[in-house]
Amino acid sequence: MSDVSQLVRPLLGQLHAYVPGEQPKIAGLIKLNTNENPNPPSPKVLKAIRSATDARLRLYPNPTADRLREKLAAHHKCKPENVIVGNGSDELLALATRVFVEPAGNVAPSRSTIQYFTPSYSLYPVLADIHGAVKNGVPLRADFTLPSVEELRRGGQWNFDAALTYLTTPNAPSGRGYATAELEDLCRAHRGVAVLDEAYVDFAGEHAMPLAFKYPHVIVARTFSKGYSLCFLRVGYFVGHPELIAALHKVRDSYNVNGIGQIAAEATLNNVAYYRKNFRRIIATRKRVSDALSKLGFEVLPSQTNFIFVRPPLFSARDWLEKLRAEKILVRWWDYPNVRDYLRVTIGTDNEMKTLLQVAKRIISTREKARR
Amino acid sequence: MSDVSQLVRPLLGQLHAYVPGEQPKIAGLIKLNTNENPNPPSPKVLKAIRSATDARLRLYPNPTADRLREKLAAHHKCKPENVIVGNGSDELLALATRVFVEPAGNVAPSRSTIQYFTPSYSLYPVLADIHGAVKNGVPLRADFTLPSVEELRRGGQWNFDAALTYLTTPNAPSGRGYATAELEDLCRAHRGVAVLDEAYVDFAGEHAMPLAFKYPHVIVARTFSKGYSLCFLRVGYFVGHPELIAALHKVRDSYNVNGIGQIAAEATLNNVAYYRKNFRRIIATRKRVSDALSKLGFEVLPSQTNFIFVRPPLFSARDWLEKLRAEKILVRWWDYPNVRDYLRVTIGTDNEMKTLLQVAKRIISTREKARR
Repeated sequence: MSDVSQLVRPLLGQLHAYVPGEQPKIAGLIKLNTNENPNPPSPKVLKAIRSATDARLRLYPNPTADRLREKLAAHHKCKPENVIVGNGSDELLALATRVFVEPAGNVAPSRSTIQYFTPSYSLYPVLADIHGAVKNGVPLRADFTLPSVEELRRGGQWNFDAALTYLTTPNAPSGRGYATAELEDLCRAHRGVAVLDEAYVDFAGEHAMPLAFKYPHVIVARTFSKGYSLCFLRVGYFVGHPELIAALHKVRDSYNVNGIGQIAAEATLNNVAYYRKNFRRIIATRKRVSDALSKLGFEVLPSQTNFIFVRPPLFSARDWLEKLRAEKILVRWWDYPNVRDYLRVTIGTDNEMKTLLQVAKRIISTREKARR
Repeated sequence: MSDVSQLVRPLLGQLHAYVPGEQPKIAGLIKLNTNENPNPPSPKVLKAIRSATDARLRLYPNPTADRLREKLAAHHKCKPENVIVGNGSDELLALATRVFVEPAGNVAPSRSTIQYFTPSYSLYPVLADIHGAVKNGVPLRADFTLPSVEELRRGGQWNFDAALTYLTTPNAPSGRGYATAELEDLCRAHRGVAVLDEAYVDFAGEHAMPLAFKYPHVIVARTFSKGYSLCFLRVGYFVGHPELIAALHKVRDSYNVNGIGQIAAEATLNNVAYYRKNFRRIIATRKRVSDALSKLGFEVLPSQTNFIFVRPPLFSARDWLEKLRAEKILVRWWDYPNVRDYLRVTIGTDNEMKTLLQVAKRIISTREKARR
């Protein structure tokens, strides 16, 4: 028997685990920190779950989520072989590191490189660390738009041979949407696997799914969490070339997607009209809140997602985080160099956003009174 | 852009994925092939799920399954820090490879070694292959009992320094139970992490949970799938030293356990009396079926699980598999050297087992008539 800490791989000793947004249980809290959809799932989805809640729970779920994959294939006009379903898209993002990337060591550095823009989903560097991969975080432009291929070549930091590149599109946390044409330029110049992480695409004007069919090294990631109000059940998927998808299938846990999640996602696809209406409502609220906050002196980045990234006036973003929290409004803030001045605010219900605007106004006017 | 297959790690090219038991949708099929519990979950568990099926599904589940971990800690008289919950115990078994084992390469071979007895859960070698680890499968005794530490030392194949050892107890597929005293001898002689995989322990006379508290390098794996009829929802857990558990937490997906699974597992722990009755019923059926099959000429290994491992008479095990399948009875058979002569038969409902016995009798008497 040896010292306990020696039983754990040294790699993990220094690892900073991914920190998910808080999920506190405070009554009356307005939770605008984890980009959840303010609308419930369709009543038909809830009904489908309730009717499946019987003796069948004793059985294993379909290990390959066949029915759901068939529905997704029909939805995206591809084959089930193009689709793998995961325990949330997080599971698949993690799987991709194990399937496409060699741990750093006796291989060419590019084969071990996981690449992403900064800022983007802060899980990517954690996944790289867990896998013992080489991280290559390359800054977006200062306004969070996408550098062109030429700029990236000139910059010299981007690695066009990186084994795996994650690209959040629309971007989180900035909310910026990227044109499919820009993304295609990037993908075309690229030799490793590129995962276009479209978690927020349902709130965007454009999506890049065609690239998953046009380029064998491009995978598109989607989730039922954000647009389809199913965070609780953990269902996401990848669409891509059958050979890449087959490799991912080999490595996933055999029963990786719980059966209720499969049933709920199937029912969701039978009721897309309900959700399209939700998307439109959130987009309308986003526009209204963006305008109102701009008038209050916030710098609001144009958003293609269900959240907005704002640079608040008068106080630091960190102070705003605390002031809003004191009023039971939770938003997200990161202590990273290029985003430290911003808050990420999820688009909630109209009532929640009304309260947010009122509170913001009050914070500003209290400060202005104090100044006089 | 490169050739598609070159995008996948060479390691995975040769990988044989784990093959789960069939989940066919054939009406009237008697499914005795994947060790599912024949009893439904408690009506109170179903009720808890139905009442949670509402707008809350739009929210992320508790990322650390706090309430469930507190309940499990109370159940096992330990602290929540001793517990990690997984998307089925399969997820945790896979996590263990990434946390405790170095991929083979520039490290001492023991640090890369994943060790297990054969036969046992056929997932272990697959997990080793996925991780690029060194596999060390060491045969159980011919009757599937556990070799003593002395025998293992003499044999020379067992590696007492292996980074990770999986031990299925009670054993699958043999169904044999191992005394905690035997397991303790083994653990005491061991220097790497030992995972005692107690998936079937609810049907056994003894469990080894105390070893998880006595030895910092011993982890006990449990699941809600078998004893608690919740395969569909994917909930399993590890109990062990807080430092090992913390390292596993670092590496798991942030929202790895779906919320309905958490709620169902919590409700399960509030209703253990219902399940204890089920365990007793399955154990009684197991005894009755074992006796009846013995009388028919089957060699039946003593079982401490919800299945029996039998060597059938007159025909090969493979032929029996086909003959039973022709009668819509599904059992499990593996084409591996030391188990090829056996069938693994899950204990189903009393009616299902009655049909199994009738069909077995018929197959035998048809053969005996043909001989005359």
